[in-house]
Amino acid sequence: MKAGAVEKYLHEHIPLSKAMGVEVLEATLQGVTLSAPLSPNINHRGTVFGGSAAAVAILAAWTLLYLRLKNEQIEGNLVIQKSATSYESPITDRFTATSSLHDPAAWGRFIATFRKRNRARIRVASILHCNGGKVGKLDGDFVAMGF
Amino acid sequence: MKAGAVEKYLHEHIPLSKAMGVEVLEATLQGVTLSAPLSPNINHRGTVFGGSAAAVAILAAWTLLYLRLKNEQIEGNLVIQKSATSYESPITDRFTATSSLHDPAAWGRFIATFRKRNRARIRVASILHCNGGKVGKLDGDFVAMGF
Repeated sequence: MKAGAVEKYLHEHIPLSKAMGVEVLEATLQGVTLSAPLSPNINHRGTVFGGSAAAVAILAAWTLLYLRLKNEQIEGNLVIQKSATSYESPITDRFTATSSLHDPAAWGRFIATFRKRNRARIRVASILHCNGGKVGKLDGDFVAMGF
Repeated sequence: MKAGAVEKYLHEHIPLSKAMGVEVLEATLQGVTLSAPLSPNINHRGTVFGGSAAAVAILAAWTLLYLRLKNEQIEGNLVIQKSATSYESPITDRFTATSSLHDPAAWGRFIATFRKRNRARIRVASILHCNGGKVGKLDGDFVAMGF
């Protein structure tokens, strides 16, 4: 899927992504980068609301797994099980969330487990950047369940 | 502050709260309960997007500390430092997030530390409910910094 098609999919199916002004900058099997502007995500201090930062990071992580499962022609539910987020610096401007597999070698095991048990878990990292600097990080554990 | 005034404050200063349809059901020094409908927070599976659940949980936690600091007549920045969220069941309908102090006795230490060092940290729990059942939980660590 091209970045524009992924963006359209997200805006249609997860309306909060549109409310947050999420744009898809890159969407490959190696990583997904989403961008969001300050204005719809602002807080009382004029910086990005932590909940927006976490939500965009979760979306980048989820989208990577969505594309990878689609590429394996696997259909199923993909749900987040837990997440740990660190907010390292105030986000003062447009920001990005870039996802990647925590351990790229884990993908083969994840797919093998899913094909065997119809259920498997994998961890995805999502790094937040603003103005060239790292401002936060989310680790998300996702579970894929076959229909 | 009455629940309606808190809701107005959140909608004005954190516009994502309005986009998520957040309502303030209760706002006391003991706990804050926010409610949000499914529709603006829906995902591709017709349940609540994990990012929305996390954002509403963070907002409930932040609002409790905001009210408590206001009550102590402390002015300062209140920022989230890290959060850990577990998504226990799919959220299929309107949901709530109810915040409380992780350890009520910690408040005295938090205030004493803030007055001494102009900076202090505290943990807040936020429990997610839907249709009478617990569906998730967020633990958030917040830092208050004096101007």
